[in-house]
Amino acid sequence: MTVAICPGSFDPPTNGHIDVIQRAARHFERVVVLVSVNPAKSPMLSAQERVLLLREVLGHLDNVEVEAYEGLLVDLARQRGAGVIVKGLRALSDVEREIQMAQMNAGLYEAVDTFFVTTDPRWSFVSSSGVKEVAAYGGDVSGLVPRAVNDLLEGRYKGGSR
Amino acid sequence: MTVAICPGSFDPPTNGHIDVIQRAARHFERVVVLVSVNPAKSPMLSAQERVLLLREVLGHLDNVEVEAYEGLLVDLARQRGAGVIVKGLRALSDVEREIQMAQMNAGLYEAVDTFFVTTDPRWSFVSSSGVKEVAAYGGDVSGLVPRAVNDLLEGRYKGGSR
Amino acid sequence: MTVAICPGSFDPPTNGHIDVIQRAARHFERVVVLVSVNPAKSPMLSAQERVLLLREVLGHLDNVEVEAYEGLLVDLARQRGAGVIVKGLRALSDVEREIQMAQMNAGLYEAVDTFFVTTDPRWSFVSSSGVKEVAAYGGDVSGLVPRAVNDLLEGRYKGGSR
Amino acid sequence: MTVAICPGSFDPPTNGHIDVIQRAARHFERVVVLVSVNPAKSPMLSAQERVLLLREVLGHLDNVEVEAYEGLLVDLARQRGAGVIVKGLRALSDVEREIQMAQMNAGLYEAVDTFFVTTDPRWSFVSSSGVKEVAAYGGDVSGLVPRAVNDLLEGRYKGGSR
Amino acid sequence: MTVAICPGSFDPPTNGHIDVIQRAARHFERVVVLVSVNPAKSPMLSAQERVLLLREVLGHLDNVEVEAYEGLLVDLARQRGAGVIVKGLRALSDVEREIQMAQMNAGLYEAVDTFFVTTDPRWSFVSSSGVKEVAAYGGDVSGLVPRAVNDLLEGRYKGGSR
Amino acid sequence: MTVAICPGSFDPPTNGHIDVIQRAARHFERVVVLVSVNPAKSPMLSAQERVLLLREVLGHLDNVEVEAYEGLLVDLARQRGAGVIVKGLRALSDVEREIQMAQMNAGLYEAVDTFFVTTDPRWSFVSSSGVKEVAAYGGDVSGLVPRAVNDLLEGRYKGGSR
Repeated sequence: MTVAICPGSFDPPTNGHIDVIQRAARHFERVVVLVSVNPAKSPMLSAQERVLLLREVLGHLDNVEVEAYEGLLVDLARQRGAGVIVKGLRALSDVEREIQMAQMNAGLYEAVDTFFVTTDPRWSFVSSSGVKEVAAYGGDVSGLVPRAVNDLLEGRYKGGSR
Repeated sequence: MTVAICPGSFDPPTNGHIDVIQRAARHFERVVVLVSVNPAKSPMLSAQERVLLLREVLGHLDNVEVEAYEGLLVDLARQRGAGVIVKGLRALSDVEREIQMAQMNAGLYEAVDTFFVTTDPRWSFVSSSGVKEVAAYGGDVSGLVPRAVNDLLEGRYKGGSR
Repeated sequence: MTVAICPGSFDPPTNGHIDVIQRAARHFERVVVLVSVNPAKSPMLSAQERVLLLREVLGHLDNVEVEAYEGLLVDLARQRGAGVIVKGLRALSDVEREIQMAQMNAGLYEAVDTFFVTTDPRWSFVSSSGVKEVAAYGGDVSGLVPRAVNDLLEGRYKGGSR
Repeated sequence: MTVAICPGSFDPPTNGHIDVIQRAARHFERVVVLVSVNPAKSPMLSAQERVLLLREVLGHLDNVEVEAYEGLLVDLARQRGAGVIVKGLRALSDVEREIQMAQMNAGLYEAVDTFFVTTDPRWSFVSSSGVKEVAAYGGDVSGLVPRAVNDLLEGRYKGGSR
Repeated sequence: MTVAICPGSFDPPTNGHIDVIQRAARHFERVVVLVSVNPAKSPMLSAQERVLLLREVLGHLDNVEVEAYEGLLVDLARQRGAGVIVKGLRALSDVEREIQMAQMNAGLYEAVDTFFVTTDPRWSFVSSSGVKEVAAYGGDVSGLVPRAVNDLLEGRYKGGSR
Repeated sequence: MTVAICPGSFDPPTNGHIDVIQRAARHFERVVVLVSVNPAKSPMLSAQERVLLLREVLGHLDNVEVEAYEGLLVDLARQRGAGVIVKGLRALSDVEREIQMAQMNAGLYEAVDTFFVTTDPRWSFVSSSGVKEVAAYGGDVSGLVPRAVNDLLEGRYKGGSR
């Protein structure tokens, strides 16, 4: 049985993130979604909020669980017996950093491989930072994020009337 | 059970190809290596030679089989019940074409996803075309390809004395 | 009045091409679609076929005309009084060649600028060469090209039953 | 009549920015240069300084106006009846972000298209951040920015003796 | 006699940095390694620590010296009579920024050229920021940095037991 | 003494090529320009023509010599005692192939390093294939290639009247 982990900031989760996780859940027995806690950054949503949102959105998938983590991804992979890290493949400029990180992780823990999966072209341009920026000015992001995320953003920015 | 297919020209198979296939075989129950037959190209090795080489090199992996194919990759995936296409992630300029192909394939057959896997940094610069060019001038490629491939290339180009 | 030219091989025209031309036609007074004739290549469709297909598909746009051309694009631009060349922006690896060509053209004829326009994400992965390959093996490309193009491809490859 | 907007930070405006705006002004009836005000960033020049500099440098172009804005670019486009956003095409790594932003903007306001224009090769390496860094250490940037910008930078950094 | 300078943050120095410097020292008569002091950044190691580490690691190379600098790189090049700047060639997304900087430097001081050198594939994925992140969580970076650097990091993060 | 080699097809030599060779000649004691002979390609100019053109254009540089070669570049490097291969750094998509080739060459002959040098921005868009295409249709390439090359092209294509 191969366990896959889907790490990310998910600040906030987008339709692109959900698409990647669903594809991982189709092909691997168990998927652990890991919400990274980075003390050096000040996220829009707390780690707890992000975990709860993802659990709500992914609740229909039996083989997916969600939790926060801090530390080295490969340590988590080792603890969970995960053999695979699954990431979305969007901008090429991201891919280079991701490849470097994948090869550094492989050097730290040889048993883990990183797989990049392409998403639906509809989500190819959706990023958390773009969503945040649009939402902060009251723009409509309902087509880019799950409903639960949209509700939370609208409540926060009171920009739902557009 | 997820079946993965590893398509390619493999003209000739390199250590990078073998690395990708081995990683696929670690995480998926069955792996079908597909040697593409393209009537419009004139390969160095016949499809039959490439299939036999790969079978010899991959013989120790119980869940891997090798065969030639002509046609649409997604048709093969459908016939074999494959849910995943696994490709190596090397040059970024390749990745763009691969993403386009992956999204076109997903449009043709929704049940299949393409995963890109990073290889060992040692193989990041090894390509079949590079190997062919070096071997054709009698250069030593023994560190870049499996032994069986090296033997065949040396026999062909009589450049084994270097 | 700014005249824009949309050059390309259009072998065959795809939904992505049509999307680019429509965007050009929204913002410029006149658009001349130029089907390049390259004696060194053997296209799937003759220049005449490509011109007729584009005229049929674009017939509803009053400010668009279509014709074949051979020679230097900037010579055509000069003859037609075109100030702008409009191209689609798809793969980054294409963009580099396009920028080089744009800057070479600007050096040859200073009055012309090249504008790159992004298309609908749905077409970001659609290329003429991909369409040709899928169609040649009887795959369904009806979602990737205009109906008139699909009909012609189906007639040619007798693969319409899928 | 097509209205084009040229958005940017312009901190400070460079010869590359001016080149892009001039090309837009050649092909579109009206051009609105928009200086973005981002409360989260601490620019070298105030929004007011940047607006005044651009007005001075672009004063000879009748169809160009300059103003500051805060908020969503597409909201501005809607208010001004702008059909086109024009951006310079420099580094490929920028282009990816720009394409994502263009497609997100198109999703928010369908009537607007983003056009990328190549600049004169002489400005291909000029960025505001590079200019700032060189000027801060007293380096000569007179060949990279308009005269009014150079005068202001020299006054500020007292490095004009080089 | 050509003097080469190898500038960088070196926070901390990695095996990739050492590889680049050694290659420069093979081909140029003298190499000056320049540790950049950027008051706007808060490095993990002080400039003094970085200089001392590099001197220790590079002590066996007679034609290499190490020092800190603040200001414009081209001013340093002019003072030292350096004709060449040597940088490692890793991620493509870095290369674009580097090319812009190289061309800006060439504009400021025509006598200097920037050469990019490829490193051993083993170091292609090693970056200072990656090393810092792994070390901060107690991960093993002994294979990625010189021994002196590893000792210092282990002392600092007390993570040497892994 | 470091010997540098500048390999290429030079079909035809452009101002960008000459720029790269001149920069190499500034920093290395001896430069050997190598015109590659590839029996599988049909060049516009014979190897002999390209050698003679380069000798004429580079005649004023005492430390530069030009010759044709066929075979493995590293074999030439070994014979000539060359420690460095110098290449121009233009399109990023080229760089990837070049890095792969550089690392393959380093694997075949450890004593050689590949250095990439940026050229004057004026030549960043000039490629031999672009020059050939423009010249073949009678376009003016006098600003892109050395005079001797322009004369030869004009004679061949009788397009000098523009």
